[in-house]
Amino acid sequence: MDTQVVIIGGGPSGLLLSQLLNRAGIATVVLERSSRDHVLSRIRAGILEWGTVELLREAGVGARMDAEGYPHDGCYMTDADLMVHIDFRELTGKRVMVYGQTEVTQDLYAAQDAMGTRVIHGVQDVTINDLDQPLAVVEYTLGGERKRLTCAYVAGCDGFHGVSRKTIPEAKRREFERVYPFGWLGILSQTPPVHDELIYANSPHGFALASMRNQALVRYYVQVPLTDRPEDWSDARFWAEFSRRLPSEAAARLVTGRSIEKSIAPLRSFVSEPLRWGRLFLVGDAAHIVPPTGAKGLNLAVSDVFYLHQALIQALTTGQQDAIDAYSGRALQRIWKAMRFSWQMTTMLHRFDGEDAFAEQMRRATLAHLAQSETARRDLAENYVGLPY
Amino acid sequence: MDTQVVIIGGGPSGLLLSQLLNRAGIATVVLERSSRDHVLSRIRAGILEWGTVELLREAGVGARMDAEGYPHDGCYMTDADLMVHIDFRELTGKRVMVYGQTEVTQDLYAAQDAMGTRVIHGVQDVTINDLDQPLAVVEYTLGGERKRLTCAYVAGCDGFHGVSRKTIPEAKRREFERVYPFGWLGILSQTPPVHDELIYANSPHGFALASMRNQALVRYYVQVPLTDRPEDWSDARFWAEFSRRLPSEAAARLVTGRSIEKSIAPLRSFVSEPLRWGRLFLVGDAAHIVPPTGAKGLNLAVSDVFYLHQALIQALTTGQQDAIDAYSGRALQRIWKAMRFSWQMTTMLHRFDGEDAFAEQMRRATLAHLAQSETARRDLAENYVGLPY
Repeated sequence: MDTQVVIIGGGPSGLLLSQLLNRAGIATVVLERSSRDHVLSRIRAGILEWGTVELLREAGVGARMDAEGYPHDGCYMTDADLMVHIDFRELTGKRVMVYGQTEVTQDLYAAQDAMGTRVIHGVQDVTINDLDQPLAVVEYTLGGERKRLTCAYVAGCDGFHGVSRKTIPEAKRREFERVYPFGWLGILSQTPPVHDELIYANSPHGFALASMRNQALVRYYVQVPLTDRPEDWSDARFWAEFSRRLPSEAAARLVTGRSIEKSIAPLRSFVSEPLRWGRLFLVGDAAHIVPPTGAKGLNLAVSDVFYLHQALIQALTTGQQDAIDAYSGRALQRIWKAMRFSWQMTTMLHRFDGEDAFAEQMRRATLAHLAQSETARRDLAENYVGLPY
Repeated sequence: MDTQVVIIGGGPSGLLLSQLLNRAGIATVVLERSSRDHVLSRIRAGILEWGTVELLREAGVGARMDAEGYPHDGCYMTDADLMVHIDFRELTGKRVMVYGQTEVTQDLYAAQDAMGTRVIHGVQDVTINDLDQPLAVVEYTLGGERKRLTCAYVAGCDGFHGVSRKTIPEAKRREFERVYPFGWLGILSQTPPVHDELIYANSPHGFALASMRNQALVRYYVQVPLTDRPEDWSDARFWAEFSRRLPSEAAARLVTGRSIEKSIAPLRSFVSEPLRWGRLFLVGDAAHIVPPTGAKGLNLAVSDVFYLHQALIQALTTGQQDAIDAYSGRALQRIWKAMRFSWQMTTMLHRFDGEDAFAEQMRRATLAHLAQSETARRDLAENYVGLPY
């Protein structure tokens, strides 16, 4: 065969899988549609669970993260002026790391370069075949030329719109989806954060999130109708709206400035089962999407990589199949827990158009319950810092 | 004045309030529309929080409850064949008492008789006036004759359809309501319980609840469409449907028999704010309704009585107003917590017509989360056994 594992997609999950497999002596080829610059221009999640942090270290890409990342020991959930502190350290003994997905991806590229692994960019028209045969066949077009790779396994790390999931016959997939009736307008701004820790804010005007990348770069969001476009939101309008959704104590500390990026993302929950089809294994967004509330997207892709890299190493070094047979079930167990958490966080914090006054009261009562119950805060914290693999 | 406190409604909350006030030397008159037999024929809740148990003891009506009630140290939440045990004792150090509302009411009548308090039955056309005057005036018709009572305070314990809430001008009330799109078909049957502890069952066919009154009397329920009528449900149909919604382990132990009562109750969440209007104070169902999932209805009325009896005793013995001024706010804090819990339990356990497949997965994931997280079980248990007053 041409390589042991073909990895479709050169985002963080594909690269991390490649990194972990190569360190175990497994040969891989990563196929990525975009250029490296394009991959690195995507602004995405920035909160790493501690399990993610540990796996990145284990993969040999933890040095810059440990030097430049910001460990966070807690966050705030707020309802108007009520600020509920979720103290991760005290409640769970764990913390999270603020370190952007772009940085993680850059570190992974650097590590892959250093190992000399094969990451091919500009790949088009990927097809995946012979998944029920002794060798799977992946074909693709590069520079106008059709190429072909045989391999033992294929890892589908190519996101929601990628070819991997669609390679599984529709009749053999079961899909679950919830599209939320609002989006997040996010800006990047080179201003000092309103607070060191993240603030998830419920308010009569809708949800807002104050997140940070470092002491001079913030990522702030407001819930907006799906019909809004970024150009509807001047910086001045954004700051006014963002400010009135924060607790007044936080709003008083807000430093505004020019936005250097502005975009609107829809919120969706999506799961496709199973994660395995013969020699193909789905990872991350290729199989599941969470709304960003709760910061589970990247972390969930990493937990898939955790289960899959162990399973592939076992299969390719010992020939034992039990871990790859168990992959879909094991990964899905954790996926559904994170789906539930992300859905609950989203429901607890957002206004839904057309909701009744009772729904608003239930959101406020949920936040009041968090304020009053250490057990409820611990439940949230355990999920936020990441459930065990 | 004719009496210190007029209590509208001779159900358990009105009687308990009367009992506690009279024991403190406060004179009361209870006005009840129905006959005592009618009040005692109502089949209602059967799970007492430990705070309720303690208040009943303090009121001097705990003896038969302690002799005949069944302390329960836990219950089950199930999803198809997954049975999650919620161990109240281990998780919270507390328990609940199974003792029917009818029994509580009977004990209260007996105690009121023994004290010689005034409980007037057959009262019609109650009006409540002069709530902003030094003395409030309650008028009613009894045996064709119009009667009049002056008093310092009026307690509205007359339920959702009573006159008390409606005495507060509509413009001064804020009401919150959620009507659930299903009802509970409940039966009483003189059969041994399928399990000593309650089973709250989620299933692909809808919700079921296995509850018990004693070792030879059960109260079982199934979720049904609101359009169903009791006569649509033969005993045979009930048992078949109930059985297939239970975990098979429990269904295997099910003993069926003739039903001796069969009725359908709608499920509703309702709160009217505030609980005070001048000299009038609302208690229990007069101001708030919870769906029965979680067994909070009677217990919440009792916690209102707890706050109100202390406030009235303080006002009538010392003249201090701070506790009656605080009553509405204090009671509502606890009410909203119980509303949240009851709504969450209802949402977690029932099928909603027209729901998507994702909703079912969230229910199942919530039950799986309970199974896997001691923290989640503790959160449920703390709410189930009753939050502190």
